[in-house]
Amino acid sequence: MGIFLFFHPEQRTEVVIIVLKPQATRQHADEILRQIDALGLRPLYMPGAERVVLGAIGDERVIDGLHLENNPMVESVQRILAPYKLVSREIHPHDTIVNLGQVPIGGARFTVIAGPCAIESRDQMTRTAQAVRAAGAVALRGGAYKPRTSPYSFQGLGPEGLTILREVASETGLPAVTEVVEVADVDLVERYADGFQCGARNMQNYRLLKALGQSRKPVILKRGMAARIEDLLLAAEYILAEGNPNVILCERGIQTFETATRNTLDLSAIPLIKQKSHLPVIVDPSHGTGLRELVGPMAKAAAACGADGLLVEVHCQPELALSDGRQSLYPGQFATLMQELEPFVVAAGKVLR
Amino acid sequence: MGIFLFFHPEQRTEVVIIVLKPQATRQHADEILRQIDALGLRPLYMPGAERVVLGAIGDERVIDGLHLENNPMVESVQRILAPYKLVSREIHPHDTIVNLGQVPIGGARFTVIAGPCAIESRDQMTRTAQAVRAAGAVALRGGAYKPRTSPYSFQGLGPEGLTILREVASETGLPAVTEVVEVADVDLVERYADGFQCGARNMQNYRLLKALGQSRKPVILKRGMAARIEDLLLAAEYILAEGNPNVILCERGIQTFETATRNTLDLSAIPLIKQKSHLPVIVDPSHGTGLRELVGPMAKAAAACGADGLLVEVHCQPELALSDGRQSLYPGQFATLMQELEPFVVAAGKVLR
Amino acid sequence: MGIFLFFHPEQRTEVVIIVLKPQATRQHADEILRQIDALGLRPLYMPGAERVVLGAIGDERVIDGLHLENNPMVESVQRILAPYKLVSREIHPHDTIVNLGQVPIGGARFTVIAGPCAIESRDQMTRTAQAVRAAGAVALRGGAYKPRTSPYSFQGLGPEGLTILREVASETGLPAVTEVVEVADVDLVERYADGFQCGARNMQNYRLLKALGQSRKPVILKRGMAARIEDLLLAAEYILAEGNPNVILCERGIQTFETATRNTLDLSAIPLIKQKSHLPVIVDPSHGTGLRELVGPMAKAAAACGADGLLVEVHCQPELALSDGRQSLYPGQFATLMQELEPFVVAAGKVLR
Amino acid sequence: MGIFLFFHPEQRTEVVIIVLKPQATRQHADEILRQIDALGLRPLYMPGAERVVLGAIGDERVIDGLHLENNPMVESVQRILAPYKLVSREIHPHDTIVNLGQVPIGGARFTVIAGPCAIESRDQMTRTAQAVRAAGAVALRGGAYKPRTSPYSFQGLGPEGLTILREVASETGLPAVTEVVEVADVDLVERYADGFQCGARNMQNYRLLKALGQSRKPVILKRGMAARIEDLLLAAEYILAEGNPNVILCERGIQTFETATRNTLDLSAIPLIKQKSHLPVIVDPSHGTGLRELVGPMAKAAAACGADGLLVEVHCQPELALSDGRQSLYPGQFATLMQELEPFVVAAGKVLR
Repeated sequence: MGIFLFFHPEQRTEVVIIVLKPQATRQHADEILRQIDALGLRPLYMPGAERVVLGAIGDERVIDGLHLENNPMVESVQRILAPYKLVSREIHPHDTIVNLGQVPIGGARFTVIAGPCAIESRDQMTRTAQAVRAAGAVALRGGAYKPRTSPYSFQGLGPEGLTILREVASETGLPAVTEVVEVADVDLVERYADGFQCGARNMQNYRLLKALGQSRKPVILKRGMAARIEDLLLAAEYILAEGNPNVILCERGIQTFETATRNTLDLSAIPLIKQKSHLPVIVDPSHGTGLRELVGPMAKAAAACGADGLLVEVHCQPELALSDGRQSLYPGQFATLMQELEPFVVAAGKVLR
Repeated sequence: MGIFLFFHPEQRTEVVIIVLKPQATRQHADEILRQIDALGLRPLYMPGAERVVLGAIGDERVIDGLHLENNPMVESVQRILAPYKLVSREIHPHDTIVNLGQVPIGGARFTVIAGPCAIESRDQMTRTAQAVRAAGAVALRGGAYKPRTSPYSFQGLGPEGLTILREVASETGLPAVTEVVEVADVDLVERYADGFQCGARNMQNYRLLKALGQSRKPVILKRGMAARIEDLLLAAEYILAEGNPNVILCERGIQTFETATRNTLDLSAIPLIKQKSHLPVIVDPSHGTGLRELVGPMAKAAAACGADGLLVEVHCQPELALSDGRQSLYPGQFATLMQELEPFVVAAGKVLR
Repeated sequence: MGIFLFFHPEQRTEVVIIVLKPQATRQHADEILRQIDALGLRPLYMPGAERVVLGAIGDERVIDGLHLENNPMVESVQRILAPYKLVSREIHPHDTIVNLGQVPIGGARFTVIAGPCAIESRDQMTRTAQAVRAAGAVALRGGAYKPRTSPYSFQGLGPEGLTILREVASETGLPAVTEVVEVADVDLVERYADGFQCGARNMQNYRLLKALGQSRKPVILKRGMAARIEDLLLAAEYILAEGNPNVILCERGIQTFETATRNTLDLSAIPLIKQKSHLPVIVDPSHGTGLRELVGPMAKAAAACGADGLLVEVHCQPELALSDGRQSLYPGQFATLMQELEPFVVAAGKVLR
Repeated sequence: MGIFLFFHPEQRTEVVIIVLKPQATRQHADEILRQIDALGLRPLYMPGAERVVLGAIGDERVIDGLHLENNPMVESVQRILAPYKLVSREIHPHDTIVNLGQVPIGGARFTVIAGPCAIESRDQMTRTAQAVRAAGAVALRGGAYKPRTSPYSFQGLGPEGLTILREVASETGLPAVTEVVEVADVDLVERYADGFQCGARNMQNYRLLKALGQSRKPVILKRGMAARIEDLLLAAEYILAEGNPNVILCERGIQTFETATRNTLDLSAIPLIKQKSHLPVIVDPSHGTGLRELVGPMAKAAAACGADGLLVEVHCQPELALSDGRQSLYPGQFATLMQELEPFVVAAGKVLR
């Protein structure tokens, strides 16, 4: 159960980080968390390998009244100055690892999630899932709800698609992610999938972000087509502020004047986000370019500049795909990519699995 | 009650327009509409001053089986070729006029809707509404739900804001529009407001668009920050395809590399949309520039190039505003603008009211 | 003869403005200008209606040694803080009027310069020039050197085109502007034309800007396709810093993701530049949109938001034009535009001539 | 001596490729080249490993009169359909290798060119050049003419800078490239440098491109900030059409709405250009990001997606640099980068030298 942060007009919200001394026990921590809670602030408990770090979110005037620097178990108290707080590296210096089913994303691993743009049939999903698993993908993607520019385009199979996804995921043993486009669908999607995708068009659908913050399942948050990196981090902050720390950021291309590609994949976002945030970052080279031929080179480049993984569109028969066929890899192309990718992943100091 | 269009994967949706002969009666029209309905297609009834026009939306193969060209009361049958159909001028050559409460938008009038970015208090709304009415605004705006980039910014008063808006609207006799950000809020907002705003960040929130298509109250649909004009027209198509013809398009600036202004107001969108669509188009020079000093010049330019009206941010005390103060006009500035605007509106062949 | 500003690596250039007291005579001014010159600084003499204003440009450490605040005839000494100095309104609060031949640009007039994209033949120029003069244009445009994206496109008639332009300008009594693309051509173009155009692709060709600064003929400086307004003002500063104050800025559209128009015309640049600079600003709605149908609406919008004039492409037979035919007006369309434009110009407080 | 292509207005230029039969001798080729020349067309001689390929550029009607398909030594005649001809892979299926001094660029090598943004002094160049050579750079960069946004910024040492560059290049044995900004400087720069840089702001300075086409020294052509990939290829076509085949394309970032980086480095341009053109492509991660911390990750990503090399800014003391210090690497950082780069270069199938 997340806590809805309601802000009065005259209120300014702040976040403080409280680093405890090495000798502080769990009891000390709990005592401080109780004090924070008693003042109506939102308490955060973030145990680390060496130190326990606590946090408090709320009205800056109330926070000013905490005076925790006087507590003998507190080593330091510090305000987060970036516009985003909980996603910031200031609050959490080490890389966060998010578990998608049994698959850890972030840290030393390079994770490849693959599958079709849209779930079209049981047969299409089964064939595609088996192919991507055989080639080394560790998780499955597939859309049941497709946000399409035209109301006359295929909009996805809806609940029927979710059922197919669940069955194929169970059969293949791959955890599955799928896009959720509406608050009312969050519960249903949560039951069927191992993780949510929040698409580029919904990156600033703040009510959806808050609803995803109420879940504890991982959320792959895609950068909006006109969103600055700071906007993406603030969108992630919406989810973390509701209590869900399991966010994976995804670069998928931005709108520019270039017309040869569908979007312009901004790979410099990867090292920049890594500098500013502790969250894992993956890359979607399929939407990022819109062209099958560019998926391989951009996947390697993503690995080279420090991405934590990929979200790749693969279809058992791209020429028959109901959406995004032009950017979907053939199973054979995906298998080749996975082989070619490995030395780049290794050179970047990670393992491909 | 709108009709949800569900598309099977293998289906391609088409729209045909059926122009009846002058002698066709309502009975003839009803008979054809029944035929369309009986085939599982969605029937449209569009009576004009001289001719009755009918439409059918659905699977192209089913439409192929209609054979209406053989009906003696049918003058012509024609497929809509643009990717958008119902919003296209092809289907509806004359300008559409949308009624916001008693206020007609489109056609010969230039309509100014004004008010604060966010509803902050009863007093603030009352003072602002009285000021804009006195200066000549014919409708009121004010946000109860504010989509904000940061979760720590003021998010609007919610239902309490809607109550204030309704009271002030009733008191001043001005119809009121307010933003809706989530499907679950559509019913509530519909009860309190005379029209919806669908914000730039939600222009491609297709589930919200479909929900707004179920209403019959006007929807001001703002162009997304990375949306091409074609994308905007397709977003409007979502609303019309659900049965709500009362859509007002709104240009509010797009993302570019320029940093001196908040967005780049694309006024060429106005004559371009007028060429392609029958829907009214208004301009938001406040978000479009982000700078109070540019609102007046851009408002005049909007009138000059054929816009049907404005959405302007006015605040009784901009220096105290909880959001967007930098772009809000002082009441005195708004009064001056309304006076200066009139000759431009008249030169454009419209009346300011 | 302009003064080439050469800057040593370790030097920082500053500009100071020296406002003289009302009683200061020309002799006082000359004495101060001599002091400025003697220190190796560049002196500027800017007499106004009420006060004489002087300036000094050069190494900030030398300027620090001037100590003019101690001079009894000096009222105030102030440094220009904007990155651009001579183009800034700080240095020159009133609107600058630039004379193109006998035609004043800026101030109370709205000036329309019209003609074909490229000079193609004597006949084409004569017919077009007569048509635009009859419709009310007060100056002629026509390109002899055409910067074209492809080396295989028509590149202009070169010197032969300049001869045609001069003859037609003399015949019709209209001053003529034409684009110069290269330092080596500046002298030749200066002999044949009444003013230069510096195109968008050359806005940051600083050697060309410096060469144009050596002339005293007017320069229409077009905004680059990726240039911020500040970049445009700094480009103009290059010309003024060389001694040529006769610069007319021109908004002609920027590169964005929108593909329905050739560029996105940024009309908010007009009031923004007016706020920051004293230079006249005109608008090119032909290149700004790339579509003939949008030229009229955008021309009116430009007048409405305070532009000082237009640069419009008109061709006697657009369907035969060797370049930009799609955006060129027919003579009849131009005549209609000039009539429809007048009330907007008048509403903006200017006169159309 | 290049041939200036002058096009009459009514002329349409075409390029045809003539593939000779295996048995054709040099004499046969010369005979055909004479026929091409006799018709006033421009002949091209392109001997390959297996076949000799000839070309003809000129008026399409004249080309139509060639009738070379009837020549018994001709295997095939084919028109180039892309808007660019000589840069196209259609005309030249294998990768072109350009020699910068003794250093081959393209093909199996990954070439790193490094040095300061601007030449500031003999000492600064010597120290920087020795450092980059020690770390593995094979060529030197340094600007004598700096195109700067403000006329009051350091503009480069000019001819004095060229002298320093030549001396340091000779001393260290590294070939040197430097930017040329003006037609009048081409001869001087050619005497001092081993290759030209044509900067982003001059990518569409077509007179400069033509002048560079008259040289035979390599030209590093940087993509303009608002240039589509097709525009870049057409700009290169200007140089090749004048007779200089030694062009190296350079991706250096484009203008987008993102403000966290100076530009957005578009790495998808690399595989896309490789698909469409035979010319080598390098990447400038320094200007492409504007941030020293991002240079390393983007350099690795460039190697991973198939670039032929890098242009990197290194300064012996970045904190004292007169320009671009924020994006210049310290010598130690550059040495680390070169070490870390190698496995990525190897994984991409190239050698780092």
